[in-house]
Amino acid sequence: MAILGEFELIERFFTRPTGRAALGIGDDCALLAPGPGLALAISSDMLIEGRHFLSTVAPDRLGHKALAVNLSDLAACGARPLAFTLALALPRAEEDFLEGFARGMFALADRHGCELVGGDTTRGPFAICITVFGEVARESALLRSGARAGDDVWVSGTLGDARLALEAFRGTLSLDEASFAHARRAMEMPEPRVGLGLALQGVASSAIDVSDGLAGDLAHILRRSGVAAVVDVDALPRSAVLAAQPAATQRECLLAGGDDYELVFTAAAGRRDEVLAVGASAGVPVTRIGAVHAGSGLRFVDASGQPDPAVIASFDHFKS
Amino acid sequence: MAILGEFELIERFFTRPTGRAALGIGDDCALLAPGPGLALAISSDMLIEGRHFLSTVAPDRLGHKALAVNLSDLAACGARPLAFTLALALPRAEEDFLEGFARGMFALADRHGCELVGGDTTRGPFAICITVFGEVARESALLRSGARAGDDVWVSGTLGDARLALEAFRGTLSLDEASFAHARRAMEMPEPRVGLGLALQGVASSAIDVSDGLAGDLAHILRRSGVAAVVDVDALPRSAVLAAQPAATQRECLLAGGDDYELVFTAAAGRRDEVLAVGASAGVPVTRIGAVHAGSGLRFVDASGQPDPAVIASFDHFKS
Repeated sequence: MAILGEFELIERFFTRPTGRAALGIGDDCALLAPGPGLALAISSDMLIEGRHFLSTVAPDRLGHKALAVNLSDLAACGARPLAFTLALALPRAEEDFLEGFARGMFALADRHGCELVGGDTTRGPFAICITVFGEVARESALLRSGARAGDDVWVSGTLGDARLALEAFRGTLSLDEASFAHARRAMEMPEPRVGLGLALQGVASSAIDVSDGLAGDLAHILRRSGVAAVVDVDALPRSAVLAAQPAATQRECLLAGGDDYELVFTAAAGRRDEVLAVGASAGVPVTRIGAVHAGSGLRFVDASGQPDPAVIASFDHFKS
Repeated sequence: MAILGEFELIERFFTRPTGRAALGIGDDCALLAPGPGLALAISSDMLIEGRHFLSTVAPDRLGHKALAVNLSDLAACGARPLAFTLALALPRAEEDFLEGFARGMFALADRHGCELVGGDTTRGPFAICITVFGEVARESALLRSGARAGDDVWVSGTLGDARLALEAFRGTLSLDEASFAHARRAMEMPEPRVGLGLALQGVASSAIDVSDGLAGDLAHILRRSGVAAVVDVDALPRSAVLAAQPAATQRECLLAGGDDYELVFTAAAGRRDEVLAVGASAGVPVTRIGAVHAGSGLRFVDASGQPDPAVIASFDHFKS
């Protein structure tokens, strides 16, 4: 509570009729109950200007992305979105910004039936914290710990475009206008794979969303599941824009790019047709990129099965 | 995700055995289910350095307060704490800070059986966002909308010491060492009235916690309930330290201080003995400070019932 006129700000930009929540914005707490026998899936992400978004982003795209990265966590659990809270620190209350931010955020929220039920606004360095709630049957939630030797490794959509856009913004490479618009859209308007996550329940053995980069995120699955994997770098799905880049750029964007918000998941090798059918029904391409086996660690090979000389072990290495 | 060694940081300072949550830290989402027939009460607060806490605060006190202000929202709903998520943006990962912050936060969490189930850490301007979850029966949750003409207005504990400490930090007044230590503790270590909130279910007709100042917060109850109230300024409970200040300072700290995290609530006049008994059983003094009547607005009078010349209409007026 600190922006002058906070209450007017909330009333004007963030208050809508209460839907499924028993009690929404305007009391000390929101009240929310999952359906009978279901658990609430909860995830929280904080976005900081300069770190998770650039000052150049359009407000409606920022509103979209702030919610999208949280919905992506629900997707990775196979949970159905229900509601979210928004805590927003702003240097000042700018109507144009707030109008655009709310519009982009609610457009995505409405597509997924996800209701804003509470939050906080304050003056401060630009930061956005969203906590999202979904419902899922405990026993069918997609966990990181379920991968088994013999499973295939899959990924949805394409990888690497968001990182490509970031490098273009940083000036380490240049893209023609159409390519830049394509990559920038991937970075600023990621599409959370909610429908795919729901449909993968009972089919996938484990899942995670690719927020830090494929290499690091898949490694979480392997560690939690106590298994190893081999991934074919040449099989990784990429856009035509990324495929036009030098091989080293492609590899870095594909494996350590992050901000992809695709699902990487495992499923028993006997269920390949089911996985492909699930992807088709969810309208999201899914690509088989590797295999799980006993042991530990993650290895990369090329299409001929030879070890890739540029092994990228972890994402932490790429950030500082 | 951005601090170098984020995973080690979470592992070292914030990972503990999973308790009531079906799934805690370490997957894409936490899973949480309220008891049969109960709803989840949810609240989210963001704390920004310089606005909600000072750089001089000890890390353990900051950890306490960041959770306390959220538990206070659960208390105001009459909800029993279950779990919380923590999103933390830090300029850098300082072990001493994190150790103290986690210690203070978990000490309070453990007293209330409230479990850390997820969150996010990132590099950025110092900001803390906690979302807290409690359970409550929908029909007995304490709402802001239940005050009725004829009710009494009550408040727990004492008001104004946190604001007094802030003014001392700002240098607008000076306190002797013991008085400053007392007031500073009130500002840095507020005690959320969780037990009182639980015990007030079925007794109080409405409740809110005093985070922005009594005048502004009580006004929320009146607006939501469609009623008016008269409050006796002389009856407002205050510490001996505040009572030793000039009258104008007392009035400002009592009515517009904020950061008190006491409960202001209403109850039918016929239930005075019950309210006092509930306060005694919860170990928190409760004081009757006014009365609800038909109409709209909040008026202040002195002990003789005369209108107070220094009417403070709204809290927004005092912050900028």
